[in-house]
Amino acid sequence: MTNQEPRVVFTPSGKRGTVPAGTSVLDAARQLGVDLDSVCGGRGICSKCQIAPSFGEFPKHGLTAAENALSEWNSVEARYHEKRGLAAGRRLGCQAKIMGDMVIDVPPESQVHRQVVRKAATARDITMNPATRLHYIVVEEPDMHDPSGDFERVSAALERDWGIAGVRIAPRLLPILQGVLRRGGWNVTLAVHDDGRGGGPRVIGVWPGLRDDPPLGLAIDLGSTTIAAHLCSLTDGGVLASSGVMNPQIRFGEDLMSRVSYAMMNPGGADEMTAAVRSALDGLATAISEEAGTEPTDILETVVVCNPVMHHLLLGIDPVELGQAPFALATSSSLTLEARDIGLNSTGVAGQVYILPCVAGHVGADAAAVALSEAPDQADSLTLVIDVGTNAEILLGDKRRVLACSSPTGPAFEGAQISSGQRAAPGAIERVRIDPVTKAPRFRIIGVDLWSDDEGFAEAALATGITGICGSGIIEAVAEMRIAGIMDATGLIGSAEQTGTPRVVPEGRTHAYVLHDASADGGPLITVTQNDVRAIQLAKSALYAGARLLMDRIGTETVDRVILAGAFGAHISPLHAMVLGMIPDAPLDRVTSAGNAAGTGARIALCNIDARRGIEETVTRIHKVETAVEPKFQEHFVAANAIPHATAPYPELRAASALPDVSFGASGGEARRRRRRAVETG
Amino acid sequence: MTNQEPRVVFTPSGKRGTVPAGTSVLDAARQLGVDLDSVCGGRGICSKCQIAPSFGEFPKHGLTAAENALSEWNSVEARYHEKRGLAAGRRLGCQAKIMGDMVIDVPPESQVHRQVVRKAATARDITMNPATRLHYIVVEEPDMHDPSGDFERVSAALERDWGIAGVRIAPRLLPILQGVLRRGGWNVTLAVHDDGRGGGPRVIGVWPGLRDDPPLGLAIDLGSTTIAAHLCSLTDGGVLASSGVMNPQIRFGEDLMSRVSYAMMNPGGADEMTAAVRSALDGLATAISEEAGTEPTDILETVVVCNPVMHHLLLGIDPVELGQAPFALATSSSLTLEARDIGLNSTGVAGQVYILPCVAGHVGADAAAVALSEAPDQADSLTLVIDVGTNAEILLGDKRRVLACSSPTGPAFEGAQISSGQRAAPGAIERVRIDPVTKAPRFRIIGVDLWSDDEGFAEAALATGITGICGSGIIEAVAEMRIAGIMDATGLIGSAEQTGTPRVVPEGRTHAYVLHDASADGGPLITVTQNDVRAIQLAKSALYAGARLLMDRIGTETVDRVILAGAFGAHISPLHAMVLGMIPDAPLDRVTSAGNAAGTGARIALCNIDARRGIEETVTRIHKVETAVEPKFQEHFVAANAIPHATAPYPELRAASALPDVSFGASGGEARRRRRRAVETG
Repeated sequence: MTNQEPRVVFTPSGKRGTVPAGTSVLDAARQLGVDLDSVCGGRGICSKCQIAPSFGEFPKHGLTAAENALSEWNSVEARYHEKRGLAAGRRLGCQAKIMGDMVIDVPPESQVHRQVVRKAATARDITMNPATRLHYIVVEEPDMHDPSGDFERVSAALERDWGIAGVRIAPRLLPILQGVLRRGGWNVTLAVHDDGRGGGPRVIGVWPGLRDDPPLGLAIDLGSTTIAAHLCSLTDGGVLASSGVMNPQIRFGEDLMSRVSYAMMNPGGADEMTAAVRSALDGLATAISEEAGTEPTDILETVVVCNPVMHHLLLGIDPVELGQAPFALATSSSLTLEARDIGLNSTGVAGQVYILPCVAGHVGADAAAVALSEAPDQADSLTLVIDVGTNAEILLGDKRRVLACSSPTGPAFEGAQISSGQRAAPGAIERVRIDPVTKAPRFRIIGVDLWSDDEGFAEAALATGITGICGSGIIEAVAEMRIAGIMDATGLIGSAEQTGTPRVVPEGRTHAYVLHDASADGGPLITVTQNDVRAIQLAKSALYAGARLLMDRIGTETVDRVILAGAFGAHISPLHAMVLGMIPDAPLDRVTSAGNAAGTGARIALCNIDARRGIEETVTRIHKVETAVEPKFQEHFVAANAIPHATAPYPELRAASALPDVSFGASGGEARRRRRRAVETG
Repeated sequence: MTNQEPRVVFTPSGKRGTVPAGTSVLDAARQLGVDLDSVCGGRGICSKCQIAPSFGEFPKHGLTAAENALSEWNSVEARYHEKRGLAAGRRLGCQAKIMGDMVIDVPPESQVHRQVVRKAATARDITMNPATRLHYIVVEEPDMHDPSGDFERVSAALERDWGIAGVRIAPRLLPILQGVLRRGGWNVTLAVHDDGRGGGPRVIGVWPGLRDDPPLGLAIDLGSTTIAAHLCSLTDGGVLASSGVMNPQIRFGEDLMSRVSYAMMNPGGADEMTAAVRSALDGLATAISEEAGTEPTDILETVVVCNPVMHHLLLGIDPVELGQAPFALATSSSLTLEARDIGLNSTGVAGQVYILPCVAGHVGADAAAVALSEAPDQADSLTLVIDVGTNAEILLGDKRRVLACSSPTGPAFEGAQISSGQRAAPGAIERVRIDPVTKAPRFRIIGVDLWSDDEGFAEAALATGITGICGSGIIEAVAEMRIAGIMDATGLIGSAEQTGTPRVVPEGRTHAYVLHDASADGGPLITVTQNDVRAIQLAKSALYAGARLLMDRIGTETVDRVILAGAFGAHISPLHAMVLGMIPDAPLDRVTSAGNAAGTGARIALCNIDARRGIEETVTRIHKVETAVEPKFQEHFVAANAIPHATAPYPELRAASALPDVSFGASGGEARRRRRRAVETG
């Protein structure tokens, strides 16, 4: 130590400077602009400001840190360690004082703007910059002779300790504020929301004393058929629980246009559908909170992404205008609302709701969320992003421009028009392989890591049962049936005689392939029927036609990269998607599966207000293509009906491709009928 | 006319300048900063921009205006005149074009910031600067190939035509927006709220085409016993209807402290009271709208003033803290809320709610409203403002400083503890005179301009009946009984024998004075009983004690001016208030009656956002005195119980003062009992 002010270097930021000897590490971090968290404001009770001091020679930083460069443990640290434990090498930044030159590491969990690696396939990082943060304050007690309201003293403390001026309070908190202040002995933790939109800071949660639990947010991907939700920590973005339910609006119509028709034909129909979806969201909030061991009242922010029809129905807007040209949205901008504005408050969910912007009348906030998650607008090479669902969102572009459209695929990919279909949940078949020679299937179910022909599968599957086929399962099953010669290029399933396997059984005038038969024991019989195949063919043709339309517009026959996304839980197999003809040809290693990209986009928006601003800006630059009035869409749709013979670029298919192709309907009327029907439906 | 640009002078503002020939008067007004209204934005349909051109010699302005200085009537003006009529000498400012030098008068009704003389006694002006204004816009139709939301095009039109950028929309309007736009053929009128608080402009109403009706606001004075409301035009501040109801919380306790006790003793009691008052406000909104021939849904803004306990109960806050030192309010600042936040939306009232700031735990937003209306802080001489109610608000001060306290007078002054009492409504006795010689009464009732001994009174009173005594009536009745020698200084009513009039009848062990007896015809018997007198004595002692306490604090024995205010409709007679000893002595010509000053303050805040900011600032400078813990308050209270003999400074009392004073209780126990009770109650 010298008489000069100590020099301090913070890692990993590399920020450095000198501070007067005796400055706490937290104060030094603040002075030097280092990202060091604190909820209690330096009172030594929240432990969010933990740091790891380094001592010794640091030639890189040009300094030597003596052991006594940091003050000794003080009584606050000792008490904290005794009560809650402080890991070896860690100190409380608000207590430890800088006495000499030193290097201080801020571990990731002590950074406010930490980066969190998300679990999904692409493993992109989410930078935390949430709208809602916790702040611990000590509030002055009331003085009869200098009267002021309790909230006014809360506000003063927030400004004094955290520099947050002019805070307002959610009216629903006024009835509990006085009790919380007194229970906490005038020490409280506030959740303060500020999304930087000019609305100013707003208290949306208050708890007595120091609150250790992070503020929670709910990211909802509201699809036509399924609703998926992630309960997230707004501190580190971690997912505490994920859950999903079927959209109860299915009873009003399986696809979007039938719901719009329902609203047009039935007075009050739109309101019925609004009530149904709101009550489903309420139920989901309860279920996901239970799963995570928290309460719906702990959910302080919600982000919703959805297609335009769901968007309008959630907001209580009759979607009739979306059913006819010019497909005008009531509002296309992002929305910042309160939970009660979308009826999300009946189970106690409160706080703020953010709904991403819509791109156009048929391209919704879910497409915006996919764009946020997969960022085609930042890609160097031409990237096709397909979000598979009852209404598919398709984006094509690169840094130069991005085009978007939606395609009404119907609910088949979400298991909803499939005889044994179900949503992705434990017990659902999600992976299928069919031996091209024996025509015998093997499969995996959600919740069990073994294949059905692995030892111990039967026991492992007892917990969930084998209950049906989810979206990714049906895609693989149909593609595998084609590879194994059970189905021909028109999609017709051959008879047991034609295919040479008793796995194919008659079903009316057509045939079905048996994936799993536990009917002898009173269990389910899970088959892929001719109707299932037809539904998948219609869906995949619509998907393909949408992608082709965007390629036409850009003037390309090929794309460099394909990203497959879908809300239905398990990942879609790029290989099988390509065999099926869902997507344009691309090198298999350039086709990736992104899981629930819309849900990921919702999570990113939940965790980072800059990302909200960013996607709002991006959406204005996306060029929208309206498939509903585009004649070429119909042409592509009809042309895409067939499932061509799977040939050999992919090693896994070599055995299959060695087999000759099959054709079961050469003489029959079924193929012709089906072609005709496809044209009419188109 | 010359080749130079025409010179134009606007009156009454005196603003002047030159504009290119052919400029419309509306555009010229905008360029020169002249306050000229317009809702349709210059389309010639709203007629709000009417002006009166002047022609001839104007030596004062140094110009001569030729008859052709203004363009001829155009077809828009002709059509407007044909359809709706344009008064002689009036032109539409948006159509008439300035062609030469001229003087243009902007009549008051064409000024946005017009001043409106209010009806109340003090006849002060209200300058209009409301938060909510109407704007007519023509919205671009949707274009499928350049998709944008309907609201985004509304927002663009508002910015283009009115310079209002970044508007948001109340979520409740999203479901109706698309229908209104299409019904109006893309022409709509918006109600835009902007109170300058940084929340930004917000669409809170939307109607197809041009809306002629003004936006409406509701000013509510929420008292412990009565709730008074004015339905006002937000365009000119005019009162469309006034209405009142009893506060249904009376069943939980007549005064504030009994309600606080009810909340403390009964779990859920505060919620019960919240529900009761909210439902009363809802009912009042419906009733007042019916009276004005409007709908509750037309109410776009509401201002509420009330005492702290009512404030908390309205907001759903348990008032328990207000029942014990240090009397901490949950929040003392003004509040800007939505109608639904105070449960005011069940009948369709929507839009924004503004609640004035509270001064302290016992001095509420009603005191702030009285300060706003009567402005003691701007008085040159020492002014005492007393707002008489179940809880009286008392302000004393001048430009240098203002002190405030509240005093628990009880509901007697609002007719609630009075045997024949009722709230101020048609049929209630509001004025009373008793002949000092014959002891016979005469009176006036609300709704009839004649005295009861005038010819034709009986017929005129048939419409309403004679139903009871309101607050101002009981004050006059008790004072007149004292003047006429029916009651002695202790408040004891003499017997028929002692007073020499059969108007006094026995009532139990005491006596009552008969004001009106229609019992022979099955009508009411309206008397002033000994209990009534006692209630009035307690109430007036509390009032007087509060005023005296503030005078002590300022160190004065006299005040220069007294303003009596009260929510109970009819004005309090200064003379009788002084006879009763409600207020400290002051020259009678310096005692004025301000009617419902709190209600007037609420109306001012409704009509002018600068007034809101002003009173918020004023409130921080008011010094609060807490009567509940002030021993001198009790002393003053006990000392103020008597009703001294009315003597002669006032001409009206000369006859009475000629009579010797009376004393009925010299030997009786009643006076002693009453003195003892007064001490105990105190």
